[in-house]
Amino acid sequence: MKDIVFVTGNEHKLKEFEHILGKTLISEPLDLPEIQSFDLEKVASYKAEEAYKILQKPVMVEDTGFYVEVLNGFPGPFVKYMEQTMGDAKMGIMFEGSSAKARTCIAYFDGRQVHTFVGETEGKIVPSRGPTGFGFASIYEVGGKTHAEMSKEEKSKKSQRSRAIEKFKKFLESK
Amino acid sequence: MKDIVFVTGNEHKLKEFEHILGKTLISEPLDLPEIQSFDLEKVASYKAEEAYKILQKPVMVEDTGFYVEVLNGFPGPFVKYMEQTMGDAKMGIMFEGSSAKARTCIAYFDGRQVHTFVGETEGKIVPSRGPTGFGFASIYEVGGKTHAEMSKEEKSKKSQRSRAIEKFKKFLESK
Repeated sequence: MKDIVFVTGNEHKLKEFEHILGKTLISEPLDLPEIQSFDLEKVASYKAEEAYKILQKPVMVEDTGFYVEVLNGFPGPFVKYMEQTMGDAKMGIMFEGSSAKARTCIAYFDGRQVHTFVGETEGKIVPSRGPTGFGFASIYEVGGKTHAEMSKEEKSKKSQRSRAIEKFKKFLESK
Repeated sequence: MKDIVFVTGNEHKLKEFEHILGKTLISEPLDLPEIQSFDLEKVASYKAEEAYKILQKPVMVEDTGFYVEVLNGFPGPFVKYMEQTMGDAKMGIMFEGSSAKARTCIAYFDGRQVHTFVGETEGKIVPSRGPTGFGFASIYEVGGKTHAEMSKEEKSKKSQRSRAIEKFKKFLESK
Protein backbone atom coordinates (compact mmCIF):
# COMPACT_ATOMS: atom_id res chain seq x y z
CA MET A 1 0.00 0.00 0.00
CA LYS A 2 1.31 3.40 -0.99
CA ASP A 3 1.29 6.30 1.41
CA ILE A 4 -1.97 8.15 1.04
CA VAL A 5 -2.72 11.64 2.22
CA PHE A 6 -6.20 12.03 3.69
CA VAL A 7 -7.38 15.60 3.24
CA THR A 8 -9.16 16.38 6.48
CA GLY A 9 -8.83 18.50 9.58
CA ASN A 10 -11.17 16.20 11.48
CA GLU A 11 -9.27 14.00 13.96
CA HIS A 12 -12.35 11.84 14.58
CA LYS A 13 -12.72 10.99 10.88
CA LEU A 14 -9.01 10.29 10.59
CA LYS A 15 -9.19 7.76 13.44
CA GLU A 16 -12.25 6.08 11.89
CA PHE A 17 -10.43 5.65 8.57
CA GLU A 18 -7.28 4.36 10.22
CA HIS A 19 -9.28 1.92 12.36
CA ILE A 20 -11.05 0.32 9.39
CA LEU A 21 -8.16 0.47 6.94
CA GLY A 22 -5.80 -0.89 9.57
CA LYS A 23 -3.04 1.53 8.69
CA THR A 24 -1.76 4.95 9.67
CA LEU A 25 -2.63 7.78 7.31
CA ILE A 26 -0.99 11.13 6.75
CA SER A 27 -3.59 13.89 7.17
CA GLU A 28 -3.58 17.36 5.67
CA PRO A 29 -6.22 19.93 6.65
CA LEU A 30 -6.37 21.72 3.29
CA ASP A 31 -9.15 24.23 2.79
CA LEU A 32 -10.14 23.37 -0.77
CA PRO A 33 -12.83 25.00 -2.89
CA GLU A 34 -15.78 22.67 -3.39
CA ILE A 35 -17.94 22.87 -6.48
CA GLN A 36 -21.71 23.16 -6.48
CA SER A 37 -23.29 20.00 -7.80
CA PHE A 38 -26.02 17.66 -6.66
CA ASP A 39 -23.75 14.81 -7.77
CA LEU A 40 -21.79 13.77 -4.67
CA GLU A 41 -19.20 11.81 -6.66
CA LYS A 42 -18.52 14.83 -8.85
CA VAL A 43 -18.01 17.07 -5.79
CA ALA A 44 -15.61 14.60 -4.18
CA SER A 45 -13.70 13.88 -7.42
CA TYR A 46 -13.13 17.57 -8.09
CA LYS A 47 -11.87 18.04 -4.54
CA ALA A 48 -9.43 15.11 -4.90
CA GLU A 49 -8.01 16.58 -8.10
CA GLU A 50 -7.58 20.00 -6.49
CA ALA A 51 -5.81 18.41 -3.51
CA TYR A 52 -3.47 16.48 -5.81
CA LYS A 53 -2.49 19.72 -7.60
CA ILE A 54 -1.28 21.08 -4.28
CA LEU A 55 0.22 17.97 -2.67
CA GLN A 56 1.48 16.00 -5.70
CA LYS A 57 0.89 12.75 -3.82
CA PRO A 58 -1.89 10.13 -3.85
CA VAL A 59 -4.79 11.79 -2.04
CA MET A 60 -8.12 10.80 -0.60
CA VAL A 61 -11.06 13.02 0.29
CA GLU A 62 -14.56 12.26 1.45
CA ASP A 63 -17.88 14.01 1.28
CA THR A 64 -21.24 13.07 2.78
CA GLY A 65 -24.73 13.90 1.55
CA PHE A 66 -28.10 13.57 3.30
CA TYR A 67 -31.20 12.92 1.20
CA VAL A 68 -34.52 13.77 2.85
CA GLU A 69 -37.47 11.96 1.25
CA VAL A 70 -40.07 14.63 2.13
CA LEU A 71 -37.86 17.18 0.33
CA ASN A 72 -37.53 14.83 -2.68
CA GLY A 73 -33.92 14.14 -1.82
CA PHE A 74 -32.80 17.70 -1.05
CA PRO A 75 -30.36 18.87 0.42
CA GLY A 76 -27.94 16.05 -0.57
CA PRO A 77 -24.36 17.37 -0.69
CA PHE A 78 -25.55 20.74 0.68
CA VAL A 79 -26.56 19.30 4.05
CA LYS A 80 -23.73 21.07 5.87
CA TYR A 81 -25.29 24.42 5.01
CA MET A 82 -28.69 23.21 6.23
CA GLU A 83 -27.03 22.19 9.50
CA GLN A 84 -25.34 25.58 9.79
CA THR A 85 -28.56 27.52 9.21
CA MET A 86 -31.36 25.37 10.68
CA GLY A 87 -29.36 23.17 13.01
CA ASP A 88 -30.08 19.52 13.77
CA ALA A 89 -32.73 20.12 16.45
CA LYS A 90 -34.98 22.08 14.10
CA MET A 91 -34.37 19.70 11.19
CA GLY A 92 -35.45 16.78 13.42
CA ILE A 93 -38.72 18.46 14.37
CA MET A 94 -39.59 19.83 10.94
CA PHE A 95 -38.89 16.68 8.95
CA GLU A 96 -39.83 14.14 11.65
CA GLY A 97 -41.02 10.83 10.21
CA SER A 98 -39.54 11.34 6.76
CA SER A 99 -37.37 8.55 5.46
CA ALA A 100 -33.88 9.59 4.50
CA LYS A 101 -30.67 8.28 3.04
CA ALA A 102 -27.10 9.15 3.89
CA ARG A 103 -24.30 8.64 1.43
CA THR A 104 -20.55 8.99 1.83
CA CYS A 105 -18.31 9.19 -1.19
CA ILE A 106 -14.57 8.64 -0.94
CA ALA A 107 -12.57 9.91 -3.90
CA TYR A 108 -9.03 8.65 -4.34
CA PHE A 109 -6.72 10.19 -6.91
CA ASP A 110 -3.25 8.85 -7.64
CA GLY A 111 -2.48 11.35 -10.40
CA ARG A 112 -3.82 9.13 -13.18
CA GLN A 113 -7.44 8.35 -12.49
CA VAL A 114 -10.04 9.23 -9.88
CA HIS A 115 -11.65 6.26 -8.14
CA THR A 116 -14.82 6.74 -6.10
CA PHE A 117 -16.31 4.51 -3.40
CA VAL A 118 -19.86 5.11 -2.16
CA GLY A 119 -21.42 3.78 1.03
CA GLU A 120 -25.12 4.26 1.77
CA THR A 121 -27.54 3.77 4.63
CA GLU A 122 -31.32 4.16 4.84
CA GLY A 123 -33.17 5.40 7.85
CA LYS A 124 -35.64 7.99 9.05
CA ILE A 125 -35.64 11.39 10.64
CA VAL A 126 -36.50 11.69 14.33
CA PRO A 127 -36.36 14.50 16.90
CA SER A 128 -32.79 14.89 18.09
CA ARG A 129 -31.50 12.11 20.38
CA GLY A 130 -27.93 11.66 21.60
CA PRO A 131 -25.04 14.14 21.51
CA THR A 132 -25.71 16.99 19.08
CA GLY A 133 -23.36 19.07 17.00
CA PHE A 134 -22.06 16.27 14.74
CA GLY A 135 -24.00 17.09 11.60
CA PHE A 136 -27.27 15.18 11.26
CA ALA A 137 -26.16 12.24 13.49
CA SER A 138 -28.61 13.00 16.31
CA ILE A 139 -31.71 13.09 14.05
CA TYR A 140 -30.92 10.18 11.72
CA GLU A 141 -32.23 6.87 13.02
CA VAL A 142 -31.13 3.58 11.48
CA GLY A 143 -32.26 0.29 13.04
CA GLY A 144 -33.76 1.90 16.17
CA LYS A 145 -30.81 4.10 17.12
CA THR A 146 -29.73 7.51 15.95
CA HIS A 147 -26.19 7.67 14.63
CA ALA A 148 -25.36 9.84 17.65
CA GLU A 149 -26.57 7.08 20.01
CA MET A 150 -24.39 4.40 18.38
CA SER A 151 -21.09 3.32 19.87
CA LYS A 152 -17.93 3.81 17.87
CA GLU A 153 -17.94 0.05 17.27
CA GLU A 154 -21.52 0.06 15.93
CA LYS A 155 -20.78 2.99 13.66
CA SER A 156 -17.64 1.37 12.30
CA LYS A 157 -19.79 -1.59 11.20
CA LYS A 158 -22.91 0.13 9.94
CA SER A 159 -22.40 3.74 8.94
CA GLN A 160 -22.42 5.02 5.35
CA ARG A 161 -18.83 6.15 5.92
CA SER A 162 -17.64 2.75 7.15
CA ARG A 163 -19.29 1.10 4.13
CA ALA A 164 -17.44 3.44 1.80
CA ILE A 165 -14.17 2.81 3.66
CA GLU A 166 -14.65 -0.98 3.37
CA LYS A 167 -14.97 -0.64 -0.41
CA PHE A 168 -11.90 1.54 -0.53
CA LYS A 169 -10.00 -0.99 1.58
CA LYS A 170 -10.87 -3.81 -0.86
CA PHE A 171 -9.69 -1.66 -3.75
CA LEU A 172 -6.36 -0.96 -2.04
CA GLU A 173 -5.86 -4.62 -1.18
CA SER A 174 -6.49 -5.68 -4.78
CA LYS A 175 -3.77 -3.44 -6.13
CA MET B 1 -18.90 52.47 -21.13
CA LYS B 2 -16.62 49.60 -22.03
CA ASP B 3 -17.93 46.50 -23.73
CA ILE B 4 -18.96 44.03 -21.08
CA VAL B 5 -19.52 40.34 -21.55
CA PHE B 6 -22.51 38.99 -19.63
CA VAL B 7 -21.96 35.35 -18.85
CA THR B 8 -25.38 33.79 -19.34
CA GLY B 9 -27.21 31.44 -21.64
CA ASN B 10 -30.56 32.89 -20.56
CA GLU B 11 -32.05 35.14 -23.26
CA HIS B 12 -34.69 36.47 -20.85
CA LYS B 13 -32.09 37.66 -18.32
CA LEU B 14 -30.00 39.20 -21.08
CA LYS B 15 -33.00 41.27 -22.27
CA GLU B 16 -33.76 42.41 -18.70
CA PHE B 17 -30.20 43.62 -18.21
CA GLU B 18 -30.13 45.38 -21.59
CA HIS B 19 -33.48 47.03 -20.89
CA ILE B 20 -32.41 48.52 -17.56
CA LEU B 21 -28.82 49.33 -18.53
CA GLY B 22 -29.99 50.88 -21.80
CA LYS B 23 -27.23 49.24 -23.79
CA THR B 24 -26.57 46.12 -25.81
CA LEU B 25 -24.49 43.47 -24.09
CA ILE B 26 -22.40 40.67 -25.48
CA SER B 27 -23.49 37.38 -23.96
CA GLU B 28 -21.49 34.20 -23.53
CA PRO B 29 -23.12 31.00 -22.25
CA LEU B 30 -20.06 29.64 -20.41
CA ASP B 31 -20.56 26.65 -18.19
CA LEU B 32 -18.41 27.67 -15.24
CA PRO B 33 -17.77 25.75 -12.04
CA GLU B 34 -19.48 27.40 -9.08
CA ILE B 35 -18.10 27.08 -5.60
CA GLN B 36 -20.06 25.95 -2.58
CA SER B 37 -20.56 28.79 -0.15
CA PHE B 38 -23.49 30.29 1.69
CA ASP B 39 -22.03 33.70 0.82
CA LEU B 40 -23.72 34.78 -2.42
CA GLU B 41 -21.15 37.51 -3.14
CA LYS B 42 -18.32 35.01 -2.80
CA VAL B 43 -20.01 32.59 -5.23
CA ALA B 44 -20.59 35.33 -7.81
CA SER B 45 -17.11 36.84 -7.41
CA TYR B 46 -15.41 33.49 -7.93
CA LYS B 47 -17.51 32.90 -11.06
CA ALA B 48 -16.57 36.33 -12.47
CA GLU B 49 -12.88 35.62 -11.96
CA GLU B 50 -13.16 32.22 -13.64
CA ALA B 51 -14.99 33.79 -16.59
CA TYR B 52 -12.30 36.46 -16.95
CA LYS B 53 -9.59 33.79 -17.10
CA ILE B 54 -11.32 32.32 -20.15
CA LEU B 55 -12.53 35.48 -21.91
CA GLN B 56 -9.84 38.03 -20.96
CA LYS B 57 -12.42 40.81 -21.16
CA PRO B 58 -14.50 42.72 -18.58
CA VAL B 59 -17.14 40.24 -17.47
CA MET B 60 -20.33 40.26 -15.47
CA VAL B 61 -22.14 37.35 -13.86
CA GLU B 62 -25.15 37.14 -11.60
CA ASP B 63 -26.39 34.72 -9.01
CA THR B 64 -29.62 34.69 -7.04
CA GLY B 65 -30.32 33.24 -3.61
CA PHE B 66 -33.62 32.58 -1.84
CA TYR B 67 -33.73 32.73 1.95
CA VAL B 68 -36.68 30.97 3.60
CA GLU B 69 -37.39 32.23 7.12
CA VAL B 70 -38.89 28.95 8.41
CA LEU B 71 -35.65 27.22 7.34
CA ASN B 72 -33.56 29.91 9.08
CA GLY B 73 -32.48 31.31 5.73
CA PHE B 74 -31.69 28.05 3.97
CA PRO B 75 -31.31 27.29 1.00
CA GLY B 76 -29.84 30.67 -0.06
CA PRO B 77 -27.51 30.23 -3.05
CA PHE B 78 -28.48 26.54 -3.28
CA VAL B 79 -32.10 27.30 -4.22
CA LYS B 80 -31.65 26.01 -7.76
CA TYR B 81 -31.02 22.51 -6.41
CA MET B 82 -34.11 22.77 -4.21
CA GLU B 83 -36.11 23.75 -7.30
CA GLN B 84 -34.65 20.82 -9.25
CA THR B 85 -35.48 18.28 -6.55
CA MET B 86 -38.68 19.55 -4.85
CA GLY B 87 -40.01 21.85 -7.54
CA ASP B 88 -41.83 25.12 -6.95
CA ALA B 89 -45.30 23.61 -6.41
CA LYS B 90 -44.16 21.48 -3.48
CA MET B 91 -42.00 24.28 -2.03
CA GLY B 92 -45.06 26.58 -2.08
CA ILE B 93 -47.21 24.11 -0.16
CA MET B 94 -44.59 22.98 2.33
CA PHE B 95 -43.31 26.43 3.30
CA GLU B 96 -46.58 28.35 2.83
CA GLY B 97 -46.81 31.44 4.99
CA SER B 98 -43.11 31.71 5.72
CA SER B 99 -41.53 35.05 5.05
CA ALA B 100 -38.63 34.94 2.63
CA LYS B 101 -36.00 37.13 1.03
CA ALA B 102 -34.57 36.99 -2.46
CA ARG B 103 -31.18 38.43 -3.25
CA THR B 104 -29.41 38.89 -6.56
CA CYS B 105 -25.71 39.58 -6.68
CA ILE B 106 -24.03 40.92 -9.79
CA ALA B 107 -20.26 40.51 -9.86
CA TYR B 108 -18.28 42.58 -12.34
CA PHE B 109 -14.60 41.93 -12.93
CA ASP B 110 -12.46 44.09 -15.16
CA GLY B 111 -9.22 42.19 -14.51
CA ARG B 112 -8.19 44.37 -11.59
CA GLN B 113 -10.88 44.23 -8.94
CA VAL B 114 -14.19 42.46 -8.44
CA HIS B 115 -17.14 44.75 -7.76
CA THR B 116 -20.40 43.31 -6.41
CA PHE B 117 -23.90 44.80 -6.45
CA VAL B 118 -26.68 43.27 -4.38
CA GLY B 119 -30.41 43.82 -4.78
CA GLU B 120 -32.90 42.42 -2.27
CA THR B 121 -36.63 41.99 -1.87
CA GLU B 122 -38.74 40.74 1.03
CA GLY B 123 -41.93 38.78 0.65
CA LYS B 124 -43.60 35.55 1.65
CA ILE B 125 -44.13 32.07 0.32
CA VAL B 126 -47.52 31.15 -1.12
CA PRO B 127 -48.88 28.14 -3.03
CA SER B 128 -47.84 28.45 -6.66
CA ARG B 129 -49.64 31.16 -8.70
CA GLY B 130 -48.80 32.26 -12.22
CA PRO B 131 -46.61 30.54 -14.80
CA THR B 132 -44.35 27.92 -13.21
CA GLY B 133 -40.91 26.71 -14.18
CA PHE B 134 -39.03 29.96 -13.60
CA GLY B 135 -37.33 29.12 -10.35
CA PHE B 136 -39.25 30.26 -7.28
CA ALA B 137 -41.14 33.08 -9.09
CA SER B 138 -44.59 31.45 -8.80
CA ILE B 139 -44.40 30.92 -5.01
CA TYR B 140 -42.74 34.19 -3.97
CA GLU B 141 -45.26 36.94 -3.25
CA VAL B 142 -44.15 40.54 -2.86
CA GLY B 143 -46.77 43.28 -2.45
CA GLY B 144 -49.75 41.03 -3.22
CA LYS B 145 -48.46 39.45 -6.41
CA THR B 146 -46.14 36.53 -7.03
CA HIS B 147 -43.13 37.35 -9.17
CA ALA B 148 -44.61 35.08 -11.84
CA GLU B 149 -47.81 37.19 -11.89
CA MET B 150 -45.94 40.47 -12.38
CA SER B 151 -45.63 42.08 -15.78
CA LYS B 152 -42.18 42.57 -17.25
CA GLU B 153 -42.56 46.27 -16.45
CA GLU B 154 -43.39 45.61 -12.78
CA LYS B 155 -40.49 43.23 -12.43
CA SER B 156 -38.05 45.66 -13.99
CA LYS B 157 -39.01 48.16 -11.28
CA LYS B 158 -39.27 45.95 -8.25
CA SER B 159 -37.36 42.69 -8.50
CA GLN B 160 -34.16 41.88 -6.59
CA ARG B 161 -32.45 41.53 -9.95
CA SER B 162 -33.57 44.95 -11.21
CA ARG B 163 -32.40 46.52 -7.95
CA ALA B 164 -28.97 44.97 -8.40
CA ILE B 165 -28.86 46.09 -12.04
CA GLU B 166 -29.74 49.68 -11.04
CA LYS B 167 -26.79 49.74 -8.65
CA PHE B 168 -24.52 48.35 -11.33
CA LYS B 169 -25.79 50.99 -13.77
CA LYS B 170 -24.92 53.81 -11.36
CA PHE B 171 -21.45 52.35 -10.92
CA LEU B 172 -20.88 52.19 -14.66
CA GLU B 173 -22.13 55.75 -15.14
CA SER B 174 -19.81 57.06 -12.43
CA LYS B 175 -16.72 55.69 -14.12
